[in-house]
Amino acid sequence: MNPTIELLKSHRSIRKFKDQPLPDGLLETLISAGQCAATSNQVQAYTVIRVTNTENRETLAELAGGQPWIKAASEFLVFCADMKRATEAAERAGADVVRGMTEQLLVASIDAALMAQNVAVAAESEKLGICYIGGLRNNPEQVSELLRLPEHVYPVFGMCIGYPDHDPQVKPRLPVETILKQDYYDDSQDQAQVDAFDDTMHQYYLERTGGKKDSNWSEELKPLFTDKLRPHMKEFLEKRGFGVK
Amino acid sequence: MNPTIELLKSHRSIRKFKDQPLPDGLLETLISAGQCAATSNQVQAYTVIRVTNTENRETLAELAGGQPWIKAASEFLVFCADMKRATEAAERAGADVVRGMTEQLLVASIDAALMAQNVAVAAESEKLGICYIGGLRNNPEQVSELLRLPEHVYPVFGMCIGYPDHDPQVKPRLPVETILKQDYYDDSQDQAQVDAFDDTMHQYYLERTGGKKDSNWSEELKPLFTDKLRPHMKEFLEKRGFGVK
Repeated sequence: MNPTIELLKSHRSIRKFKDQPLPDGLLETLISAGQCAATSNQVQAYTVIRVTNTENRETLAELAGGQPWIKAASEFLVFCADMKRATEAAERAGADVVRGMTEQLLVASIDAALMAQNVAVAAESEKLGICYIGGLRNNPEQVSELLRLPEHVYPVFGMCIGYPDHDPQVKPRLPVETILKQDYYDDSQDQAQVDAFDDTMHQYYLERTGGKKDSNWSEELKPLFTDKLRPHMKEFLEKRGFGVK
Repeated sequence: MNPTIELLKSHRSIRKFKDQPLPDGLLETLISAGQCAATSNQVQAYTVIRVTNTENRETLAELAGGQPWIKAASEFLVFCADMKRATEAAERAGADVVRGMTEQLLVASIDAALMAQNVAVAAESEKLGICYIGGLRNNPEQVSELLRLPEHVYPVFGMCIGYPDHDPQVKPRLPVETILKQDYYDDSQDQAQVDAFDDTMHQYYLERTGGKKDSNWSEELKPLFTDKLRPHMKEFLEKRGFGVK
């Protein structure tokens, strides 16, 4: 394994950070490395908001469902899907533009994700730790208002960045053979593999919590499929001009 | 700049590949590095289809709008957003699951993108070249049928992987200051910066084509905003059980 692949395989979310700022210019280097990720037809449909205002950090920590590391991290970034800039550029160039298409929602969300993952890898290559914050989608309206996001821009997720002050284990993943299929989607082995992975995760939780957390993968997934998990997203996105048609 | 950041900054899409297979086990290593990317609540909402069947490769090259490198690449992967596996696992664990929520569409699409970007970086760290193929969304129904994708699984994009047989330039990106904003979305400088970037891209196109391509960023964006760009995506996704509510 080369050092880059070793780095990728050592990722874990960091939620405790040292009180140590990033050296001057490093954040810009990370963002610039992020921008080098592939982008659909070079549209670069993203904007990153770097939140330095302490009060806003506190508010975001609350809006994300109580995540104090948003305040404690050296940097907190909000990755936004941004179709505004490109649409307006095309419009100024004379295009009779159409807004609100679902394809544009996908392009912008995926562009933002590819870019963010490069930022994450770049940060980790500099011994920084990161944590994605999907919880911003708990209250996307309030987040958008706080960051003064205009129409055709929405907050996809946040990211805490800083020097790690704890050393959590790498979390297990499903076996490669479960998620990699040859030529066709064949899930005849999935259930047995998921059962085995439930055992893996059960062991992981027991070890990590000194026997306190008696759970597994399937159990932990249950809350993700209730109708309480961000049921507002469809209406929110449509209001922002995403996925209307 | 450390070697990983240098690697990230050297990315360019590769569309000409040597007739040279990947060493045994490397693809699995790349996928496994991909799986180490962050995943929303560990849901791992993705499946990758490795297409080895020559006839299917040809069909996919056509379905993607005529992209022969899909056939010529050593490997061609289709990254699918997959909510089926996790939903069924939660259901077997006793959850009264809800399907079709827009939040689930986002989670699965973003999970697939973060994972794919790690695969891309891992591949490039092994001197391989890659090219994302968003064109699979030109004909997502036919792609899904060909790969026998079930409900709650959809093809987000493809990726060609192989040893590069050309050496294209790195494509310019918008200035960091255009896409990185402090505390608030302030686009008062965007138009001037986009104008300058149009000049950068104009020069880039002229140089790359020996003076033949007289265009710029804004001009090239125009086709992305017509109502002909994948207007079927909303209906397609809903039919697949994504983003219904």
